[in-house]
Amino acid sequence: MAETIAAAAAGDTDAIKGDREPRTERGRRTRRAILDAAAAEFGERGFHDASISGITRRAGVALGSFYTYFDSKDVVFRALVRDLSAQVREHVAPAIRAAPDGIAAERAGLERFLRFVREHKEIYRIIDESEFVDSESFRLHYQSTADRIAQRLAAGVARGNFRADVSEVHAWAIMGMNVFLGLRFGVWSEDQDPDAIADAVAEFLRRGLAR
Amino acid sequence: MAETIAAAAAGDTDAIKGDREPRTERGRRTRRAILDAAAAEFGERGFHDASISGITRRAGVALGSFYTYFDSKDVVFRALVRDLSAQVREHVAPAIRAAPDGIAAERAGLERFLRFVREHKEIYRIIDESEFVDSESFRLHYQSTADRIAQRLAAGVARGNFRADVSEVHAWAIMGMNVFLGLRFGVWSEDQDPDAIADAVAEFLRRGLAR
Repeated sequence: MAETIAAAAAGDTDAIKGDREPRTERGRRTRRAILDAAAAEFGERGFHDASISGITRRAGVALGSFYTYFDSKDVVFRALVRDLSAQVREHVAPAIRAAPDGIAAERAGLERFLRFVREHKEIYRIIDESEFVDSESFRLHYQSTADRIAQRLAAGVARGNFRADVSEVHAWAIMGMNVFLGLRFGVWSEDQDPDAIADAVAEFLRRGLAR
Repeated sequence: MAETIAAAAAGDTDAIKGDREPRTERGRRTRRAILDAAAAEFGERGFHDASISGITRRAGVALGSFYTYFDSKDVVFRALVRDLSAQVREHVAPAIRAAPDGIAAERAGLERFLRFVREHKEIYRIIDESEFVDSESFRLHYQSTADRIAQRLAAGVARGNFRADVSEVHAWAIMGMNVFLGLRFGVWSEDQDPDAIADAVAEFLRRGLAR
């Protein structure tokens, strides 16, 4: 078995054993197609019923191509969880960076997240199932998300925009809000406008975190 | 197969087919012992690896006693999710009812919830796994929890304590906070005092929801 250890897709996570990085642009496209197909396969069928042949069929690649990059169903699932985590992060990051202040940043992050979830409903099932299939990736996803929120809040405290007692508790509270608002208003139903939801939450945060 | 349909333990949920209500006090104690054993078995081993014999061994009851009340592993799992949901509700309800105002009620509910989770860490794994094993119970648990929070918030709006625009969005946000604070500060680590966490959240809510 090849022992090359790939750097994880997310860039800031531990490498996954049996997940090999492509060396060519064509290889990167194939690996990307396999991960997108894996999201569809795991999202629809769940981990236990999903199969490698189901993934390669959806991706339109040969079984050999799968094994060029991933050693097993377990390995592609682990790589997928970290890939989805990175996709969410990269999707919301530009809006957060462009926001004029801390509250606007949280508002923009939530609004972009709700829209992303509506287009990628399978992300909930996959990340939730990682608790059972690959608990390390599950924990890494939420811990790193909460850490990023905590960093943004700390920056707001340092700038004097937020109260000095805003802490890790608030970061976990905000992440929890976003996850459940995404479940209710992204996955389960699209009955409310993401902008209106983000506005309501921004007003709540503005008052709740203000000095 | 017996077709008696039991009323669900929670009282306000749909009956579960193949879950039979005991008619004697002794029967109720046996059913209770089976559900507590099921919480330990499913919490430790997960749904797929858990077994009925593992449950009856932990409960110290004969296999026949299990089948007196439950038709299958699926049925006892469904009953357990609704039972845990009811246990959380009943554990936090007295503190919420005794609170002098809406913010104190949410504070008390969170503090009691954090303490309950520390004593029943398996609840997260079981309710999270219900998304895959019994999605109806998963949905019912979160929808009914959010509905109760929304009712409390609406009462606060009616009394003039909360802003008029406090809505279902805030109810889902508060539930999400509580779930993730429970994961971080109840299941993963007990490094912070539940009272301090509840105080921080209460202050956040007081400012965030005030008129």
